[in-house]
Amino acid sequence: MKNLLLTIIITCLASCSGQKQKYEYPFRNPRLTVEERTADLISRLTIEEKASMMLYNSKPIERLGIPAYNWWNEALHGVARAGRATVFPQAIGLAATFDEQLVQEVASVISDEGRAKHNEAVKAGNRGQYLGLTYWTPNINIFRDPRWGRGQETYGEDPWLTGRMGLAFVKGLQGNDPRYLKTAAAAKHFAVHSGPEATRHEFNAEVNDYDLYNTYLPAFKTLVDGGVAGVMCAYNRLDGEPCCASPELLTEILRNRWGFTGYIVTDCWALQDMITHHKVVGTAAGAAALAINNSVNINCGVVYRKIPEAFFTGLVTEKEVDDALAGGLKILFRLGWFDEVDETPWRNLGNKDIATVKSKALARTTAAGSMVLLKNNGVLPLKKDLRNIYVTGPNAAAMEPLWSNYNGFSSELVTVLEGITGKVSPHTAISYNPGCGLVNDTLFRGTWLINDSETIIAVMGLNSLLEGEAGDAWLSEYGGDRKDIGLPENQVKYIKKLAERGKPLIVVVMAGSAVSLSEIEPYADAILYAWYPGEQGGNAVADILFGDSNPAGGEKKVEFSIPVTQLRFWDPLQGKYAIGTGEYSFFAAKNSADESVEIRVVMK
Amino acid sequence: MKNLLLTIIITCLASCSGQKQKYEYPFRNPRLTVEERTADLISRLTIEEKASMMLYNSKPIERLGIPAYNWWNEALHGVARAGRATVFPQAIGLAATFDEQLVQEVASVISDEGRAKHNEAVKAGNRGQYLGLTYWTPNINIFRDPRWGRGQETYGEDPWLTGRMGLAFVKGLQGNDPRYLKTAAAAKHFAVHSGPEATRHEFNAEVNDYDLYNTYLPAFKTLVDGGVAGVMCAYNRLDGEPCCASPELLTEILRNRWGFTGYIVTDCWALQDMITHHKVVGTAAGAAALAINNSVNINCGVVYRKIPEAFFTGLVTEKEVDDALAGGLKILFRLGWFDEVDETPWRNLGNKDIATVKSKALARTTAAGSMVLLKNNGVLPLKKDLRNIYVTGPNAAAMEPLWSNYNGFSSELVTVLEGITGKVSPHTAISYNPGCGLVNDTLFRGTWLINDSETIIAVMGLNSLLEGEAGDAWLSEYGGDRKDIGLPENQVKYIKKLAERGKPLIVVVMAGSAVSLSEIEPYADAILYAWYPGEQGGNAVADILFGDSNPAGGEKKVEFSIPVTQLRFWDPLQGKYAIGTGEYSFFAAKNSADESVEIRVVMK
Repeated sequence: MKNLLLTIIITCLASCSGQKQKYEYPFRNPRLTVEERTADLISRLTIEEKASMMLYNSKPIERLGIPAYNWWNEALHGVARAGRATVFPQAIGLAATFDEQLVQEVASVISDEGRAKHNEAVKAGNRGQYLGLTYWTPNINIFRDPRWGRGQETYGEDPWLTGRMGLAFVKGLQGNDPRYLKTAAAAKHFAVHSGPEATRHEFNAEVNDYDLYNTYLPAFKTLVDGGVAGVMCAYNRLDGEPCCASPELLTEILRNRWGFTGYIVTDCWALQDMITHHKVVGTAAGAAALAINNSVNINCGVVYRKIPEAFFTGLVTEKEVDDALAGGLKILFRLGWFDEVDETPWRNLGNKDIATVKSKALARTTAAGSMVLLKNNGVLPLKKDLRNIYVTGPNAAAMEPLWSNYNGFSSELVTVLEGITGKVSPHTAISYNPGCGLVNDTLFRGTWLINDSETIIAVMGLNSLLEGEAGDAWLSEYGGDRKDIGLPENQVKYIKKLAERGKPLIVVVMAGSAVSLSEIEPYADAILYAWYPGEQGGNAVADILFGDSNPAGGEKKVEFSIPVTQLRFWDPLQGKYAIGTGEYSFFAAKNSADESVEIRVVMK
Repeated sequence: MKNLLLTIIITCLASCSGQKQKYEYPFRNPRLTVEERTADLISRLTIEEKASMMLYNSKPIERLGIPAYNWWNEALHGVARAGRATVFPQAIGLAATFDEQLVQEVASVISDEGRAKHNEAVKAGNRGQYLGLTYWTPNINIFRDPRWGRGQETYGEDPWLTGRMGLAFVKGLQGNDPRYLKTAAAAKHFAVHSGPEATRHEFNAEVNDYDLYNTYLPAFKTLVDGGVAGVMCAYNRLDGEPCCASPELLTEILRNRWGFTGYIVTDCWALQDMITHHKVVGTAAGAAALAINNSVNINCGVVYRKIPEAFFTGLVTEKEVDDALAGGLKILFRLGWFDEVDETPWRNLGNKDIATVKSKALARTTAAGSMVLLKNNGVLPLKKDLRNIYVTGPNAAAMEPLWSNYNGFSSELVTVLEGITGKVSPHTAISYNPGCGLVNDTLFRGTWLINDSETIIAVMGLNSLLEGEAGDAWLSEYGGDRKDIGLPENQVKYIKKLAERGKPLIVVVMAGSAVSLSEIEPYADAILYAWYPGEQGGNAVADILFGDSNPAGGEKKVEFSIPVTQLRFWDPLQGKYAIGTGEYSFFAAKNSADESVEIRVVMK
């Protein structure tokens, strides 16, 4: 009986998986190897078709039954730019959990949603941007200058932590199926890309070898060793060479020394920068040839349209083109994208698997685990049956700081005001007034509502219009970056004004980068650093303020001491290394996954 | 058997209701009449205690076992200022449903939540403000000048509709129990109180008899006839007499002619206005006497603290004080508030009955029923599987316009961005950018996201910081009011800029008053007037835009025609009556409750 059952299953598997099916072309046959299928497909393409398939928005090739594919997709802290998705805390907050298992779980939910969206889109005949399976995530650049607008996208300033978090995220995105990639991750931006935003298309990063190999490259090496499918080359130059055409970075280090066999994709319109800004080449055909000769597989931009011209004028050989093309195609084969019948374990994921009750619960615990309690003179936790709470500040009822950048949207975003509303007793009065804007409008009116309140909760900070990527953060003072790390002056004034009322004052700071709180610290009874906390951010803040969640920032604190004079660290304000001889605080955090101990040093 | 059962029930009722219980004082005995109990209680009070019980925040009288009671509570479109509650559309939107039954149902849910909050508060020993059972709701003033900031709190410009809506709301708040008031409603502000906000504490309203009796008083008469428990006298003077001490308004019309037996409460600090602004009396004791002599029962303010002084100096007799006191006490007796055991049908309401799935569903259908589709060239309804939607405008992801003013808070407020996110297919991309501020910051950056979008949804309008009550709407140009009825100029510019992109442009307007859309109308393919739509506003907007709900504004349209020259109407721009000889549109709406027909005239 057991044998019979087994036979039936085997028969079904063989039938379901189409082993007996006949394919028009060998590249369609899922029983062949990726290499065999890639070679077969390439052999059938014209040079123009090859060029098209090396562009991020490759066109359909109808004679071979190949649909369009758009490589550009994002999943920084949730499937991004594709509508509804679970919005997890911004990357900098994920790093603050110090919890690799949690971050991998988050990325696994994200790739579930990514597969689900892809399946639904394909069913609907929608092959548009942000619906593919190739994510240009994570951003493992080093957050060296705290004013960098995109620092929020990274895992912080620590090369080791960045590698651990990045690898956990990649594992979650790519899954552990022996045959298929769940989705394809890409580590970016390779390399030494840490701002400033305003000059990113033209600057030349100059770093010494110590810094290059100890600060900027280790996380990339960790992810390559861990099997990341892609690497995105950066806009900037490194030691004079544009990163997307750097023999040292791409050929010598990435391909030869590290043995990277995945695909390299240009940052968007980075090859155009080589012509316009770096001025290392005069034509698009020349730029395409430069990139291909450094094994760049996929071009986000339009320069690879000139591959035929580069070929016909002898700038590249067809073999070179084929090799570069193969790198991209192999990823699509590994994703199962060329298979006529979806045999992946994720074929049944669909709308029901997007933004689920479970994924929202994970977003909430992750957000709570990311937040850091910087000060508490004993005012926390708050009682849930307070008579009257005054909720104020420009971020208290604001949505932008929840989703930050590179984000999807939720139909159930929870602001701090909503989180508190859901947390307190049915007879707790809540008053709300924004009080002031993010950077202007210091408006103290409406504060008469404070008279009756027992506690003030002020939600301050920044949002992704003030700090972020060039072009996105259009309220930034400096192309996406900040000019200094202070809390905006009007917010400082407002906190001081609130403190005059003599009520317990709890300050929640939402930001993606380090914000100096020294000016307001003496006035606040408690300060919670909430990052950009995702769709459940308001619930997570309420969980912590009212004692339902422990604001450990994911840390398991251990006893720790070290002589100060032995410390060498980067001082972002001085812009140089310093020896720690001043007054510093030390935080030690034990990683739950591998028992390793993280050390963070904070200026007092 | 039937007789036996009946006997048991009667025994139980007698026992449960405490008929056999002995009461220390007759006023505690729920089997006596309200009149008997009121007389007994008054006979036991000192003049100081009487004064205290005529103040809105009456102190406990411990020797009689009477706890504190705060009369001030609000429920304009949901239990207000008491934390968590279902937030229904603002009153002006409720009126736009033209649906009495629906409005009564809404008010009934509100009074459920009010009783539930009161029960929970009493259990917790919380006798604070906004937790009592006496609501200073509805606002049935006439919205004559569309710039009035508090016009949003009213049921509009029509005396008849105002009466119908106000009465439906009162019925819902007060319930139909033969013995108890569910909660006590109060019609405000009596009378001829329609702005401007900036001078409300000092202005003298002068109206002719025609206007007084045909425009300003009918709704009050309707609510008095319908049994409203309270009337709030207004800040302003009417024909020289302060409304809270007007023999004509309070004694002659309200008490004598209309036979009003409920309680009269002053608007807050209105008696102080009689001294400071109207200057009709020099001292607080004198102001108290003036009000008492015009049968004002409850004082929101502090002037009634001087009742003992007024009594001892002969300005009022004890009989006059007792009569005024009785009017307030009777309401508390009718609410069951003095009963030691809660015998009301609402005694088991509690936390579980606040903000329920059902109440949120009602908030959603009510919001959808309130919205008015002003234009649709065929672009609506939208398909749910659009590839890419661009959501923009200062109200698209904003919370303030959902709750407007005199509001509670929800833990699940739904912005338009969230509503759309929840509505579209899993492969519909959503881009969002606020685009511009409400009144400044015409920022057109970020509009590159429009390139890929198939449809633009721009959510424009005002919020309750721009229009509202004096002191609250602190971004208003004129003490809470607007200076003109135009859409803010920067928003007009932004709409024109958006229209240049040649994509279908749908404009949603959130506002509490009439906003002239003539400047943007030619640029929009569809315009939806959404009022301030409450916590489910975003879902309701999405329901309408995507065809799941019919944007009828509650109207059942009927054929209708009338010769133009027969029309006489108030022209708010001219500030006088006009004979309709120009070009006008006519809307006729059939009321579902009584089949009566409403006619609205709109200038073309």
